[in-house]
Amino acid sequence: MTLIECVPNFSEGRRPEVIDEIVAAIAGTPGVTLLDRQSDAHHNRSVVTFVGDSLAAQKAAFAAIATAARLIDLNHHEGAHPRFGATDVVPFVPIRADDMAICVAAAHALGARVGAELAIPVYYYEDAVRRPERRNLADVRRGEFEGLREAIGRDPQRAPDEGPAAVHPQAGAVAIGARQALIAYNVNLDSTDLELARRIAGEIRERDGGLPCLKAMGLALDDGVQVSMNLTDYRRTSLRAAFEAVRSRAAAAGADVRESEVVGLLPEDAVTALAREVLRAPRLTRALVLDAKILDGILAAEE
Amino acid sequence: MTLIECVPNFSEGRRPEVIDEIVAAIAGTPGVTLLDRQSDAHHNRSVVTFVGDSLAAQKAAFAAIATAARLIDLNHHEGAHPRFGATDVVPFVPIRADDMAICVAAAHALGARVGAELAIPVYYYEDAVRRPERRNLADVRRGEFEGLREAIGRDPQRAPDEGPAAVHPQAGAVAIGARQALIAYNVNLDSTDLELARRIAGEIRERDGGLPCLKAMGLALDDGVQVSMNLTDYRRTSLRAAFEAVRSRAAAAGADVRESEVVGLLPEDAVTALAREVLRAPRLTRALVLDAKILDGILAAEE
Repeated sequence: MTLIECVPNFSEGRRPEVIDEIVAAIAGTPGVTLLDRQSDAHHNRSVVTFVGDSLAAQKAAFAAIATAARLIDLNHHEGAHPRFGATDVVPFVPIRADDMAICVAAAHALGARVGAELAIPVYYYEDAVRRPERRNLADVRRGEFEGLREAIGRDPQRAPDEGPAAVHPQAGAVAIGARQALIAYNVNLDSTDLELARRIAGEIRERDGGLPCLKAMGLALDDGVQVSMNLTDYRRTSLRAAFEAVRSRAAAAGADVRESEVVGLLPEDAVTALAREVLRAPRLTRALVLDAKILDGILAAEE
Repeated sequence: MTLIECVPNFSEGRRPEVIDEIVAAIAGTPGVTLLDRQSDAHHNRSVVTFVGDSLAAQKAAFAAIATAARLIDLNHHEGAHPRFGATDVVPFVPIRADDMAICVAAAHALGARVGAELAIPVYYYEDAVRRPERRNLADVRRGEFEGLREAIGRDPQRAPDEGPAAVHPQAGAVAIGARQALIAYNVNLDSTDLELARRIAGEIRERDGGLPCLKAMGLALDDGVQVSMNLTDYRRTSLRAAFEAVRSRAAAAGADVRESEVVGLLPEDAVTALAREVLRAPRLTRALVLDAKILDGILAAEE
């Protein structure tokens, strides 16, 4: 059995009874383990993290999408975060970096069912993309619910990958995708120089010619400054490479790293890769980590 | 449910049918996951690694000890490795460093049963020790089977912690203990200077005033030299500290680390601790690692 992760985002962050019912639809699906749920009232959005094998994960996601379509009306939704669906995005994420093909297949199987059975238009994005221009979620979600409602039937460029060429009257649309695990990683400097943090962020991020698969911005904290990063593929730019990119530039400016923090969960592969680099231990992989081996053993026994 | 690891050593490394039957006794115990088995014909010894909750692990270990007592006769055993029992040692090892008390309790419960039901004398060692002079396994096993057979009834210092004051006629005695995970870790130098490897080993090992909980020796390889280490408590001396101790001393002598390797399995906590140090990320613990969290989620669901 191969576990994959699913991290759906729902356009409700204020009504606990609605969020509870969506989470219950996920947690009540056999074979699924709920790992996390977070709601943000300002964004009016909730993020749920769960794992299961491909089929169980699809079933749980489908149940959640159906529940959200019943309980959330986008016509009355407002929040700081852009959105175009009651279930806004459903990314499948490989736990072992090699399992991307399983996640892509899960996205497509779920999308076909959501389009046909729930009459919600579906857009595939990132590694599940069918039209290359839809890779980035921001492009797919352009205009949000209100904009897509007008454009979907008129503009062939906005025709969905699955389902009707009209938004669902309350639930809008949904983006379903597959992507590598994203690592949110912040490095705090022992400096109050916001310009330094911004300059480092500008030098290291991919967009401006820096490290691949790295997004970065400089932020002011109460007690210093921070380079806040997203690693969108830790196999391309590792945690240690990101840390060192910040540390060395800070050092050149006479500053140092005070501490760093990972926000959310970190795949075992990302931690092991760091140990492999630091220890110059090329054969140190997930297969040598006891806890991962136990997990794999338990999963294999369930096959 | 809390999983613990058990790594029994059996005095048989040549007859596959005997080893198979012992392993089958373990793997056939409900709630136990077999992780590894290794046999060494020269040592005439096999090491089995499995995990389970405390009760399942005790049952599997008991079944293995009973099977080994039936199939192995120490009177006809010879091998390079010191031994005093058909099942020679049974260490319980916490998977999460904090779970040592559970391992000590498992050792004592198993020991009482082995002494009473199998009439095999039991000696507790390391963290399960009842007499402080028995902490080190080498002291417990002094004289091996043949020596203990003579001494056990005469010398009050050799009286067992459980069971009869006579060795089992075929199966001898057994040492049952609890200890932190031991990490076997080798660092290879780009040098052929065996004296350098030996000098570094001498400087860094605890016995000679070096790093706590670190054993080390210098070895010649076909293509270089190696500092071969055992970390007996990675919370005291970490993988990175051991690596750096070797690297810095090698560098001072004009040599460098070519690569390093972990032999056997590594607890998640040891990998995460390394990332925590390198990234200066004090809040980076096992609780943030996806795979460990999934494992804990699956185990919690089984409670």
